Amino acid sequence: MSFVRNAWYVAGWAENFGRALTPLTIMDDAIVIYRTEDGRAVALADECPHKRLPLSKGKLKGDAVECGYHGLTFDCLGNCIRVPGQTTVPKAAFVRSYPLAERRGILWIWMGEAEAADPDLIFDLPAFDEAGWAPHFGDALEIESNYLNVAENLCDPAHVSFVHPTTLGNPESEDVPIESHREDKTVITSRWIRDAPPVGFFKAFGNFQGHVDRWHYYLFHAPCVAVIDFGSADSTLKIGEDERDRGVRLFALHFLTPVSETRTIDHWMHLRNIAQDDEAMGDQMNAQFRLAFDEDKEILEAVQQREARPRRQPPVRIAIDRGANLLRRVIKDMVEEEIDLEDALHRQDGGETARPVRAVPH
Amino acid sequence: MSFVRNAWYVAGWAENFGRALTPLTIMDDAIVIYRTEDGRAVALADECPHKRLPLSKGKLKGDAVECGYHGLTFDCLGNCIRVPGQTTVPKAAFVRSYPLAERRGILWIWMGEAEAADPDLIFDLPAFDEAGWAPHFGDALEIESNYLNVAENLCDPAHVSFVHPTTLGNPESEDVPIESHREDKTVITSRWIRDAPPVGFFKAFGNFQGHVDRWHYYLFHAPCVAVIDFGSADSTLKIGEDERDRGVRLFALHFLTPVSETRTIDHWMHLRNIAQDDEAMGDQMNAQFRLAFDEDKEILEAVQQREARPRRQPPVRIAIDRGANLLRRVIKDMVEEEIDLEDALHRQDGGETARPVRAVPH
Amino acid sequence: MSFVRNAWYVAGWAENFGRALTPLTIMDDAIVIYRTEDGRAVALADECPHKRLPLSKGKLKGDAVECGYHGLTFDCLGNCIRVPGQTTVPKAAFVRSYPLAERRGILWIWMGEAEAADPDLIFDLPAFDEAGWAPHFGDALEIESNYLNVAENLCDPAHVSFVHPTTLGNPESEDVPIESHREDKTVITSRWIRDAPPVGFFKAFGNFQGHVDRWHYYLFHAPCVAVIDFGSADSTLKIGEDERDRGVRLFALHFLTPVSETRTIDHWMHLRNIAQDDEAMGDQMNAQFRLAFDEDKEILEAVQQREARPRRQPPVRIAIDRGANLLRRVIKDMVEEEIDLEDALHRQDGGETARPVRAVPH
Repeated sequence: MSFVRNAWYVAGWAENFGRALTPLTIMDDAIVIYRTEDGRAVALADECPHKRLPLSKGKLKGDAVECGYHGLTFDCLGNCIRVPGQTTVPKAAFVRSYPLAERRGILWIWMGEAEAADPDLIFDLPAFDEAGWAPHFGDALEIESNYLNVAENLCDPAHVSFVHPTTLGNPESEDVPIESHREDKTVITSRWIRDAPPVGFFKAFGNFQGHVDRWHYYLFHAPCVAVIDFGSADSTLKIGEDERDRGVRLFALHFLTPVSETRTIDHWMHLRNIAQDDEAMGDQMNAQFRLAFDEDKEILEAVQQREARPRRQPPVRIAIDRGANLLRRVIKDMVEEEIDLEDALHRQDGGETARPVRAVPH
Repeated sequence: MSFVRNAWYVAGWAENFGRALTPLTIMDDAIVIYRTEDGRAVALADECPHKRLPLSKGKLKGDAVECGYHGLTFDCLGNCIRVPGQTTVPKAAFVRSYPLAERRGILWIWMGEAEAADPDLIFDLPAFDEAGWAPHFGDALEIESNYLNVAENLCDPAHVSFVHPTTLGNPESEDVPIESHREDKTVITSRWIRDAPPVGFFKAFGNFQGHVDRWHYYLFHAPCVAVIDFGSADSTLKIGEDERDRGVRLFALHFLTPVSETRTIDHWMHLRNIAQDDEAMGDQMNAQFRLAFDEDKEILEAVQQREARPRRQPPVRIAIDRGANLLRRVIKDMVEEEIDLEDALHRQDGGETARPVRAVPH
Repeated sequence: MSFVRNAWYVAGWAENFGRALTPLTIMDDAIVIYRTEDGRAVALADECPHKRLPLSKGKLKGDAVECGYHGLTFDCLGNCIRVPGQTTVPKAAFVRSYPLAERRGILWIWMGEAEAADPDLIFDLPAFDEAGWAPHFGDALEIESNYLNVAENLCDPAHVSFVHPTTLGNPESEDVPIESHREDKTVITSRWIRDAPPVGFFKAFGNFQGHVDRWHYYLFHAPCVAVIDFGSADSTLKIGEDERDRGVRLFALHFLTPVSETRTIDHWMHLRNIAQDDEAMGDQMNAQFRLAFDEDKEILEAVQQREARPRRQPPVRIAIDRGANLLRRVIKDMVEEEIDLEDALHRQDGGETARPVRAVPH
């Protein structure tokens, strides 16, 4: 299975990019990102088409990038504007430029056809704007595992009981059934654990005296954004499913960026409805998240290593897999849709142009 | 060439296994070993058939193993006894279990068909029981070399003159002919060096005043056990071949466990007929063995690295190769016999069942 | 593309070889070099044809090499002169011997047919003998890049403006055209930068008060020797192209030795026409060269890493590539000539003998 390219992915937190030529790899594309003199972010293919040196080994000349080998210079659109030693510029001298967008302190990159890069498709969440909520940025967690392994972990409330027993889960939830369904390109998995002791995280931050009702809603907006709505409320309140704001509620956001077939970056952050201005609490929560996500990383990397080896027996399918299976189906549909679209475009021009997005070596 | 699977291999010294989930790899099989609450050792395939996480990343629940990802739980026979979130267990939910046997402080594992695992086939040596002898355990030496390279080194008395000149060999033996023959699945190579100065090892431990008669008998019990009967006696005694107990005599045991095509573990130990209760002497002897076996390791790993590259000229065959050649022939016979047996079984059921031992990915 | 084998390559500085068995790899051939008791250098294939142990793991016995595994012993011609344990030597027991030549403190090795190893073909430079000049040895720079990438860098005066802006280049030369032509197996690229500020190197060593005329002549003698004749003269002297000795003039020599498809060693040194006996100045110049060549190394290794990945767009060809293109053409011609020669030899004997030089595994 390939990646979905016609989508906005997170390149990084906006503040991590400046006037330095910053290399990164997304879906095996080598990309260099920098800001122009007036602060606009630019993303270009990170390879000079002359001798293949990464442009990130060169330097900025104003808003253009000069290659560090022979000085070929490319503007923000990727057009070559100078070839030292000659006055003409060959037609082939350009590099791909990637659409970028900056929102809520996050830099998004569009990996597909530039014409299709609609900013309205960028993920957003009402809580960013609502009173009583505030965003707190986390880390970029690098995971040596295929992006689908990471993605299905984010459609899977069941794992918290076993992978995160001291922070986000506890034994009370082990056998509670999970509800899963698909809404267009979003997979939603959820469960409520009613009238049980709080998990470690809510012991630390909820100040609960007795049992709580705990919920986990995993909304995976394919191909790359997960919103985990989770929280706890005093069981005596007997809150309804739509009264989650009466409890301690968090949105943990995970933005998955596939680096290669075997590596994924997970940029994570959270919003919470308590102590929004308490930086110390934000740091303490992030410390717990770091602990939990490192547990996921260990699991997902071990699974990836096994996937490099032949399977000895057929896979076992169980009830809790439903969310992950829905997710793989959504991604599969999106990839197939893209391939169909490209084939159509390709037939339309009689096969005369190269496929711009899934271009392969020649 | 493949490995012989229908045989007992050494998994490790018995004392190295306890209530921890201990992962190890034998013939590319990932295996987890642990002891039950009443101390019995258990070996299971180290991979949950659900998402392929190694079971060794999970934890023991009584005598069963709970997977660290979603809690699937397997008993000592490898049967799944719990799937959290549901009341039924899918038919495919099991893992392979490997027969084990514990003898003389050694844990043996059977890598082939469980039904064929006959404990009477486990290697033993009368000296373990005889007065005047005592076992002294050594190390698990990991060698980055194919198991056959290591095995043929243990059918090869000739190398000691050149590889171990300060410990087990000296120049006096360089040109002494070697006798080799095969007895069923055992290859025996031997030589006597009469009336010569003692080698370093017997200088250190034999207290000899003059020349000695030195012997090396290498008994390789295919596929994986080598007994090296070696010693020295004062030359003036003029002992016969069957009077070795009159000299200082040792049995160095090597138990080879193939990890993969390019890695082998050599568990080694010795028995001796002098100072059986002198732990200090045991330690000093082991120090000399460690030195010598590290010399073998260097040679065998260099050879393996070369075997990854094309040969530039045909191999040279010489007289001292006879033991190694007999050994390779025995192993080849054993592997072919296994393949024939599997084919017969496979034909018998009309090809309907998977081949249980050499199962390949699907 | 393969390597040119019928040529003299630099094995190393002569002083680096002595009585130690020194392993090195050239064009994927494992080679061991040592000196005989009377100081003559010997190069043999570094692999015993018995069990494939590198001979460099053995030891010298007089002028012969004894294998460290079973004592097979090879003389300076590669003939086996002893097989312990037997009185005869099998016909196949020999190793390839490589012609060597020592000149000007450099040890040269012939990688092709021994019969064709003509010492008159060894590179030399008149300046080695001329008054007013002296050789100063540099380092062996290991570069993880294909030999042709390194070679074309040495037919390319254009890169110095961008890769070495603080030492060997400066912006004044960026757009100065380059002259390139081929003379038999030599590619010559050159340019003059007239009436401009001196580059860092000549600021440090030239003691110039004003503008200089600076020249770069790159003479690449295929397949493996580059002579870079560069220097500066006070612009007021208005020297002609043939009056370079009136300025501060250097010959930087690079001897390329391909190790494998992705690794190359560049042995470099220089001769200069100023302060020939001033060792301190030699050291300071070498320090600047080291800085500059490390800049090349970084570029060339980054290019190699990219070459391991598919190209996304067609290469751009520009004016300054002419020298590099001529070089690749010369090498291609030489390789093809060798292949033709081998095919002719092979046909001549009815295909009965193995091809001695490009021998492949069987």
